Amino acid sequence: MSVRENTEVTPKFDLKKQLFAEFTGTAALLCTVIGSGIMAERLSGGNLGVALIANTLATVFALFVLIEILAPISGAHFNPLVTLVVYFKNRSNNTISIVITAYIAILFIAFQLLGAIAGAWLANVMFELPVLQFSTHVRGGQGQWLAEAVATAGLITVILRSGTAHVKAKTSTLVASYIGAAYWFTASTSFANPAAVLGRMFSDSFAGIAPVSTLGFVVAQALGAVIGTLINQYLNDATD
Amino acid sequence: MSVRENTEVTPKFDLKKQLFAEFTGTAALLCTVIGSGIMAERLSGGNLGVALIANTLATVFALFVLIEILAPISGAHFNPLVTLVVYFKNRSNNTISIVITAYIAILFIAFQLLGAIAGAWLANVMFELPVLQFSTHVRGGQGQWLAEAVATAGLITVILRSGTAHVKAKTSTLVASYIGAAYWFTASTSFANPAAVLGRMFSDSFAGIAPVSTLGFVVAQALGAVIGTLINQYLNDATD
Amino acid sequence: MSVRENTEVTPKFDLKKQLFAEFTGTAALLCTVIGSGIMAERLSGGNLGVALIANTLATVFALFVLIEILAPISGAHFNPLVTLVVYFKNRSNNTISIVITAYIAILFIAFQLLGAIAGAWLANVMFELPVLQFSTHVRGGQGQWLAEAVATAGLITVILRSGTAHVKAKTSTLVASYIGAAYWFTASTSFANPAAVLGRMFSDSFAGIAPVSTLGFVVAQALGAVIGTLINQYLNDATD
Amino acid sequence: MSVRENTEVTPKFDLKKQLFAEFTGTAALLCTVIGSGIMAERLSGGNLGVALIANTLATVFALFVLIEILAPISGAHFNPLVTLVVYFKNRSNNTISIVITAYIAILFIAFQLLGAIAGAWLANVMFELPVLQFSTHVRGGQGQWLAEAVATAGLITVILRSGTAHVKAKTSTLVASYIGAAYWFTASTSFANPAAVLGRMFSDSFAGIAPVSTLGFVVAQALGAVIGTLINQYLNDATD
Repeated sequence: MSVRENTEVTPKFDLKKQLFAEFTGTAALLCTVIGSGIMAERLSGGNLGVALIANTLATVFALFVLIEILAPISGAHFNPLVTLVVYFKNRSNNTISIVITAYIAILFIAFQLLGAIAGAWLANVMFELPVLQFSTHVRGGQGQWLAEAVATAGLITVILRSGTAHVKAKTSTLVASYIGAAYWFTASTSFANPAAVLGRMFSDSFAGIAPVSTLGFVVAQALGAVIGTLINQYLNDATD
Repeated sequence: MSVRENTEVTPKFDLKKQLFAEFTGTAALLCTVIGSGIMAERLSGGNLGVALIANTLATVFALFVLIEILAPISGAHFNPLVTLVVYFKNRSNNTISIVITAYIAILFIAFQLLGAIAGAWLANVMFELPVLQFSTHVRGGQGQWLAEAVATAGLITVILRSGTAHVKAKTSTLVASYIGAAYWFTASTSFANPAAVLGRMFSDSFAGIAPVSTLGFVVAQALGAVIGTLINQYLNDATD
Repeated sequence: MSVRENTEVTPKFDLKKQLFAEFTGTAALLCTVIGSGIMAERLSGGNLGVALIANTLATVFALFVLIEILAPISGAHFNPLVTLVVYFKNRSNNTISIVITAYIAILFIAFQLLGAIAGAWLANVMFELPVLQFSTHVRGGQGQWLAEAVATAGLITVILRSGTAHVKAKTSTLVASYIGAAYWFTASTSFANPAAVLGRMFSDSFAGIAPVSTLGFVVAQALGAVIGTLINQYLNDATD
Repeated sequence: MSVRENTEVTPKFDLKKQLFAEFTGTAALLCTVIGSGIMAERLSGGNLGVALIANTLATVFALFVLIEILAPISGAHFNPLVTLVVYFKNRSNNTISIVITAYIAILFIAFQLLGAIAGAWLANVMFELPVLQFSTHVRGGQGQWLAEAVATAGLITVILRSGTAHVKAKTSTLVASYIGAAYWFTASTSFANPAAVLGRMFSDSFAGIAPVSTLGFVVAQALGAVIGTLINQYLNDATD
């Protein structure tokens, strides 16, 4: 997510490789979320608390690794809302180092969405489930929509704050830790990513979301992204 | 908690933004503690050990992130006793970089308390519970009061020690890890923060505390903060 | 795994000590995987979710420590496929600092395999089980073979990417975190290491693998290692 | 444990404060191990796997914090065998920065043992148990004695290796992670510390050890410390 602050070598903007990184990273992320959800559900004997702890650990570890190894190439967005925030941020100033044009942003988002589906399918194949399936896990209601807005506002705030000069810690650690907390403190287990919504639609498991529930989640996430951007602007005026 | 030691740029003391950071950070912390408590209680099928493990992971992750991203603005106290310790420390010497006057200290504490309540209410709304509710979870007795004094003495010691030149690790990591341990080794699950006591009073859940139990906890915490400050003074005389 | 990037002092290539490090490190790794598996199985009352969480934590902690303390000596491969990848990489360029000839590679692999068996036996003795035993845990099928290929491709990618100048984080943290995720997101719980397959064959426990299942796993891992190497070559062309 | 490598300011050898640090640190460590054991046993509904996961997390977090904040004062040994290893190491060379004479070593050990008892009693008082009690948890047999030797050999190896110039990571992180693994991969749950044996004798709980079992554990640990020292000498000859 977002961009490596300490990148000493200017990345070459080889678009093909950036798209490969966004596709592969988002696929790996979704495969982790869904695969660990399936494994956790199978092993935890009906104790969903145990299952969500396992799901949390796997997601935190994977996010940390994926951001570390792919951020130097593409910025490791893996999330259409992050790409949009970076795009609009780029238009107003230059604090984020990988420049993204409207054309690139659209391609990033397309490859994230394709990657999310590929990741879900890979999990399905590995666990010998039907490749094409749809979740029957209905999620929604005012509480969960609020939760998605909160989760996404927090995610965007964490990503943008971690790009400031004051924070020495890595974006990778902050984003992974944030999601580790948000899985538990939000009523929706914090999807916070339209690509994650799309991918998880294709898994009828612990981590899935029914197609009928996707629109509400994505709208709430978009609102959250706007709120997160505004919070960050307010805070940055104070400290930069 | 406490202050970033490596801040290279002197923070501008924009009081409004500091209060915003204290309010938001404390709200996020309490929302995490209470929200993850509700989620953990719902999912863990009555196994409170599983629930407290989940509650611990969420709190550790959240504390780390919140201190990292908000310390450059306000010092990331989120705790009236931390603000008071920093205030009295400032009066005697200058080792802590954000200067706090009595006026600012009072405002910090007010916004922390408001934030704690807001965080509890946000959790209640997200989980579709009545917004205004009071905990019926009575906590107390000599063991738990001792536990709160120990927990707070430890917290203050960790914060003040992590401000010394010898310790290179971040306050964020140390405070988060400390609380992760204290949730388990203290008989009270380590509130260690009067703002946390206030916020958790407004949640009739796993993480709640009945209004009748709050005074004992806060008194014990205040004593612990004094002990922690004295321990630190003794140790600092030796090494600084 | 792979080689310390920041090694300031050129390691002396004392082959005996390198082999000692590979033997001891692989033994410690397998002893951790199998020992924690036995302990977890005994304590978790039949909840395999709890057992795999414990197994994951122990493995992540051990990998981090073993790579940290032994990488300066031998590169901390502990895995024949990692040694082979480093060997072929060395032949084409010099980005990896410990030069490995074909002769050394063969010795490394031999000591890894011996270490893996020794580690399994040590776990058996500590837990007062028959020293020589064979797993009856049959694993395999297309899903699990795919899973092993994916797991190994990911491991090799993580190791090779963490050797690039862009990534400041340590190989130790990345590899340990990767395996922590892969234990859960792959259908095979991610062996990703022929030495691990060999060692785990000698334990009729939670972590074991029946002799009849080993060939499929190793072939899948070898394919995964090739894929991981190709992914890395593609990505490196873009950014180095 | 062992000594901070990056200490820029030479610590003043104020013996009183060093003894205070060893006493307090060992007390806090034992209070964490025993207190979290009691809490975990009470909450986990008889699932000892869940209890040991909680016990592990609390111990790992506490070790990390205690070593970080007290190592600059006393070296953060908290373990008579570590003090003895450092003492004998000091006599042969100067790679460890806090010089310890025989007189100081004896005092360190005395205060560690007193601290361990104090920590156990503090846990007992916090959890409203009889202050003076003895464990009835018999531990021993060849498997567990071997396990203690292995656990201590590993601990000493980790501590001594983490003092070399090659390893940049902190002793705090390595020791905490090592113990996190060793709780699970050893059949004895890795006491690896005679002070821990003494303190845990005074707690009739999950973490306790019956008085009759203590001698075997301590003898095995002493043997392990010798083995760990020898391993380290062998490895250091190669790389320093």
